[in-house]
Amino acid sequence: MAESAESILKTLGIQLPAMALPAANYVPSVRTGNLLFVSGQISFGTDAKYVGKVGTTLSVAEGQKAARICAINILANIKAALGSLDKVARIVKLTGFVNCAPEFEDPHLVINGCSDLLTEVLGDRGKHARSAVGMASLPRGAAVEVEAIVEIA
Amino acid sequence: MAESAESILKTLGIQLPAMALPAANYVPSVRTGNLLFVSGQISFGTDAKYVGKVGTTLSVAEGQKAARICAINILANIKAALGSLDKVARIVKLTGFVNCAPEFEDPHLVINGCSDLLTEVLGDRGKHARSAVGMASLPRGAAVEVEAIVEIA
Amino acid sequence: MAESAESILKTLGIQLPAMALPAANYVPSVRTGNLLFVSGQISFGTDAKYVGKVGTTLSVAEGQKAARICAINILANIKAALGSLDKVARIVKLTGFVNCAPEFEDPHLVINGCSDLLTEVLGDRGKHARSAVGMASLPRGAAVEVEAIVEIA
Repeated sequence: MAESAESILKTLGIQLPAMALPAANYVPSVRTGNLLFVSGQISFGTDAKYVGKVGTTLSVAEGQKAARICAINILANIKAALGSLDKVARIVKLTGFVNCAPEFEDPHLVINGCSDLLTEVLGDRGKHARSAVGMASLPRGAAVEVEAIVEIA
Repeated sequence: MAESAESILKTLGIQLPAMALPAANYVPSVRTGNLLFVSGQISFGTDAKYVGKVGTTLSVAEGQKAARICAINILANIKAALGSLDKVARIVKLTGFVNCAPEFEDPHLVINGCSDLLTEVLGDRGKHARSAVGMASLPRGAAVEVEAIVEIA
Repeated sequence: MAESAESILKTLGIQLPAMALPAANYVPSVRTGNLLFVSGQISFGTDAKYVGKVGTTLSVAEGQKAARICAINILANIKAALGSLDKVARIVKLTGFVNCAPEFEDPHLVINGCSDLLTEVLGDRGKHARSAVGMASLPRGAAVEVEAIVEIA
């Protein structure tokens, strides 16, 4: 039997953070039918906070760590909304936004940091459709922001 | 009993504009099942038109007014598609695109101008998941563009 | 009776390419219910490959050709996922990302190159909701990237 997402997280030493409610007129996620739309999650974690432009002030490897934090925040919001990661039937779609300079050509490599963790934790259920794009800027100077659409079991 | 969206709009002195059809091979919105996908709406209203880069040629406050126009245009397109704003079960998701310079760190504050009006007009039905991001450029130099996914009652 | 999408493609001399699987932890498309989410497709085709910034190193006309390649790649992925383009009930939504300089004001004209081909091949089923936006950068320096949501018949 497949190991549960929660026990994989434990093995990886990842504790899902308690997510603060947005300080504005929007919410962390909205469910409609069996789809959950998760708001864009920036690369601010409990232990680390990635600010800056990937390829300029941050390396691609740092950008990938930033994207991994976005994945953790996405998982935290899914768990908060559904009660358990077992309720995830599929990560349907990610849009990965990378804060970078106009000459940066690797936003896709950066967003792999998010895709890899979701797949590590959720297995085939974590394999999603995706766009990865380079942005002029992101909220609070974040290096990476990722939003998600999730199918609920 | 809750005041209707249309009467709140009247109180606010907002008249929903008649939206022109796009001059290209796409449409203002598409319904699939009980979801309505509304095309990206730029910050051009009947009374004002916001062009430029927020944080550079426009202040954050002006950017918020631009985002408010996007909200009005989204509401106008929803009404055109559904006949009445009473048919909105929920604003599910917004993606807010802000035209800005690479050093601008407040796209989320700008998009609040859209989120705030939708919530003022629709109440809890207006509370959505959201991403707010900073763009290199937008169509016709618009300061803000916002797209929406809506659940139909 | 309407001509089939496949025969229109033949008339246009377009052969849908075999799409390589992404070299990372994501997939070309995900189906959930009767929606198919197609990953962002960049402007790299079998015959041509558009790299660079539209409005700077590429003209708008070249950007439109780049966007047309994205449309072909989207169609190829839909066919790979569904077996036939006859299974398309509707192209619901496109997000068109244009790699460009901050002063470029015509991302919408560029994305018309994608919208036009989808409509030419699919007729009214090809008419979609859309956002067109200008990006700081795109994967591998691509000039254009377009993602799609498709309703399955």
